[in-house]
Amino acid sequence: MNRRIIFYMLGKITLLEGALLLLPMAVAIFHGENCAFSLLISSIIALLLGGGLTAFSKPSSRHIFAKEGLLIAALSWIIVSVIGALPFVISGEIPSFIDALFETVSGFTTTGASILTDIEKMSRGLLFWRSFTHWIGGMGVLVLVMALVPSDSGRSMHILRAEMPGPIIEKIAPTIRSTAKILYLIYLFMTVLQIVLLCVGGMPLFESIIHTFGTAGTGGFGVKADSIAGYSPYLQWVITIFMILFGVNFNIYNLILLKKFKNVLKNAEIYVYLTIILFSTILITVNTLPYFDNLSDGIRHSAFQVSSIITTTGYSTVDYNLWPSFSKILLIFLMFIGGCAGSTAGGLKVSRVIIIFKVIKQNLKRVIHPHAVSSIKLDGHILSDGIQRGVFTYFSLYMIIYSAILLILCIEPFDITTNLSAAAACLNNVGPGLNLVGPASNYSCYNDFSTFILTIAMLIGRLEIYPILFLFFPFVWNKK
Amino acid sequence: MNRRIIFYMLGKITLLEGALLLLPMAVAIFHGENCAFSLLISSIIALLLGGGLTAFSKPSSRHIFAKEGLLIAALSWIIVSVIGALPFVISGEIPSFIDALFETVSGFTTTGASILTDIEKMSRGLLFWRSFTHWIGGMGVLVLVMALVPSDSGRSMHILRAEMPGPIIEKIAPTIRSTAKILYLIYLFMTVLQIVLLCVGGMPLFESIIHTFGTAGTGGFGVKADSIAGYSPYLQWVITIFMILFGVNFNIYNLILLKKFKNVLKNAEIYVYLTIILFSTILITVNTLPYFDNLSDGIRHSAFQVSSIITTTGYSTVDYNLWPSFSKILLIFLMFIGGCAGSTAGGLKVSRVIIIFKVIKQNLKRVIHPHAVSSIKLDGHILSDGIQRGVFTYFSLYMIIYSAILLILCIEPFDITTNLSAAAACLNNVGPGLNLVGPASNYSCYNDFSTFILTIAMLIGRLEIYPILFLFFPFVWNKK
Repeated sequence: MNRRIIFYMLGKITLLEGALLLLPMAVAIFHGENCAFSLLISSIIALLLGGGLTAFSKPSSRHIFAKEGLLIAALSWIIVSVIGALPFVISGEIPSFIDALFETVSGFTTTGASILTDIEKMSRGLLFWRSFTHWIGGMGVLVLVMALVPSDSGRSMHILRAEMPGPIIEKIAPTIRSTAKILYLIYLFMTVLQIVLLCVGGMPLFESIIHTFGTAGTGGFGVKADSIAGYSPYLQWVITIFMILFGVNFNIYNLILLKKFKNVLKNAEIYVYLTIILFSTILITVNTLPYFDNLSDGIRHSAFQVSSIITTTGYSTVDYNLWPSFSKILLIFLMFIGGCAGSTAGGLKVSRVIIIFKVIKQNLKRVIHPHAVSSIKLDGHILSDGIQRGVFTYFSLYMIIYSAILLILCIEPFDITTNLSAAAACLNNVGPGLNLVGPASNYSCYNDFSTFILTIAMLIGRLEIYPILFLFFPFVWNKK
Repeated sequence: MNRRIIFYMLGKITLLEGALLLLPMAVAIFHGENCAFSLLISSIIALLLGGGLTAFSKPSSRHIFAKEGLLIAALSWIIVSVIGALPFVISGEIPSFIDALFETVSGFTTTGASILTDIEKMSRGLLFWRSFTHWIGGMGVLVLVMALVPSDSGRSMHILRAEMPGPIIEKIAPTIRSTAKILYLIYLFMTVLQIVLLCVGGMPLFESIIHTFGTAGTGGFGVKADSIAGYSPYLQWVITIFMILFGVNFNIYNLILLKKFKNVLKNAEIYVYLTIILFSTILITVNTLPYFDNLSDGIRHSAFQVSSIITTTGYSTVDYNLWPSFSKILLIFLMFIGGCAGSTAGGLKVSRVIIIFKVIKQNLKRVIHPHAVSSIKLDGHILSDGIQRGVFTYFSLYMIIYSAILLILCIEPFDITTNLSAAAACLNNVGPGLNLVGPASNYSCYNDFSTFILTIAMLIGRLEIYPILFLFFPFVWNKK
């Protein structure tokens, strides 16, 4: 194993975080807040640690194999989260380190679950940092490093693969660096567009930036206790549309930029994704009609909640915990489906769901005609046995891990619905769940042990299981 | 498609049911109950219908392919359930046909879910019939027909495959008929043994028979509102042990009879099955300790509930709905695992769970070493790609169907836990769930539509999806 390259990459990422921490510090200084000091100290710690790691572990070989890629992904997300939690602890705004770590992991993994009981008391500098982690984590910390740092190794695909969500990872440009750059430029453009549209609708600039970070990363952190409920219908619709847009595979936007419209139209995932959103919105609108004064309110709130949950953002405009069971269960299912592969959203991803249905369909035919031979295609490409097996393994492992997390949470004296929604909301990187962890509530009810388990769940969900899982396997750490 | 053979087989099964209905009629006459008349009428209807079907559809060809096998399984279970529901409706003891059908399907599929609000008021004849359906359905109505009726076609393996649970179906004797006979002889011997052991413990003969039917079929119908709670610890332990025994693959007993002890020791499923029971009992004993006066009571009740749920029997000695969330969620997970393949139990089956874990393990290795080649073995045999794909398809389809049933149930105004446990308890053929459908309660709360959906769920679970699913596919009905 190439340990030097791992430490070297961790150093680069830590350096980058040290630099990024200066942005919320500037915000804090601008508002004359004391938390600027805690952000500065955290930045210095990150820069020193990062500088040391890069200086003392210059790799002799830049070869990166699957194993190194997985370890780099897992360890960099952990180190970035630990350092990212420091400002909360140092400033005293979140005194418990476990809680601060939960909040930071929730930020970077774009979950948006919070242990804060009174968010409106937080300083602006830390609120900015908290939401900025959504924006960074959405597209990926490693993707960002690769966009900024020249890499001479074609092997860094293994890093991209370990961090990017979805069953099939393709480079959309000739090199990793140009791929990462294109992704971040699209991301930046859409972010700026949303900030402008929110400001136009009368949302103050600071809140516009925070909510855009939360939307772009499909995270869900905000500044108000009632999330997006207090804003105008226009602002709610803008956020709805951008949540849906950020849940789309970014490759689609790249194809549009390249004017390859035919390839866009061939993409099955986006059709299915939009169809699920449409039908879920209709079902929930009908189911919750008695809860609203008029149909247009019903449609708006249903569309908002559906888009928020399927993209695993977690913003809310109503307390959907008060809705009937049908709507609540449908929202839980949407959590598991998640957004498109190659987007900032979590969950299983729509493309995996499509592949599962296609394989099921083929197998049903085989039950009747055991000797029939046929291949399964997605977007015109044949799905290899390896990809099919990978998707089924992923799905089964996902359900097993979900069950394990749920079982551990049930040691706490809360009702089953609270626990099953908490496990689903954290593993799928959604944020709010039902009952005690519903949208009008937060995760402060859980004890330190459960909070830590949910922290791991968020990382498992964001990194799609393998990087985190392999940390627990001794053979991965072998020198060979 | 060979339609004549389908009708012919349906006729045979209907004839058999007509004969079997005479047994509860005898019980009713013995106790001087009026319901004897309703059983007689039902028997006559069955005999006339069965006689007509066999007389007018003598098949010219006895070829049975996969399609015919699936259709015979689905249609015979439906016809047997519809006729089996008649005595309840005719006697007026369950006036609603939908309710009577639910109760009968619950019997044949060995679910044990009931819509009866006062079971202790039922006549003995109908209580006997209700529990007798467990015993018939446990080993399979088609297996019984094949044991009794000489069949000259080697193709009837397709029927056995459609009705027998598990991922890999093997003949344990040279012919289908001898396989079916051996299975039923073992079944009969164990049934008689349990009746004797219960009588020895002081349980009245009638109750011993009823509870043995419920245990042997892993069904769960009884005669008391509090299930097995009122019986002595000895009787509870006898039932515990027999529930575990009836959840074992019957091939194991055949191997023991043949003195092939080496093959028994090589069987992975039974180890895993017993290990899951052991560890679950320990976990639940610890978790529920404060609920019992002493450790021995705690162990007995935990072991009973664990064995009852994993074998999908559904008897109870306590109201486990009052237990903490941890124990309740663990019991729900056990519902999904189920018993061994080739037993009378429901659920996914332990062997499928083992295969899923083995494939996951192999795929985790592939993530690190993408080009490594290795095969997966179970009990010394290599698992073909087809079996692996079949198991994953089955698991995914099972979860999708479960989700669909749960979503439909949630149209009712009940809490999520009630609905998710009802869907799990019916699909996995367990019986009681949690909250409104807990062990101290019943399924009478659901409206006709939900009751019908749960009826289909039980059939899907018992016949392992495909036979029932294919009924809805037009291409199966094509002549070709």
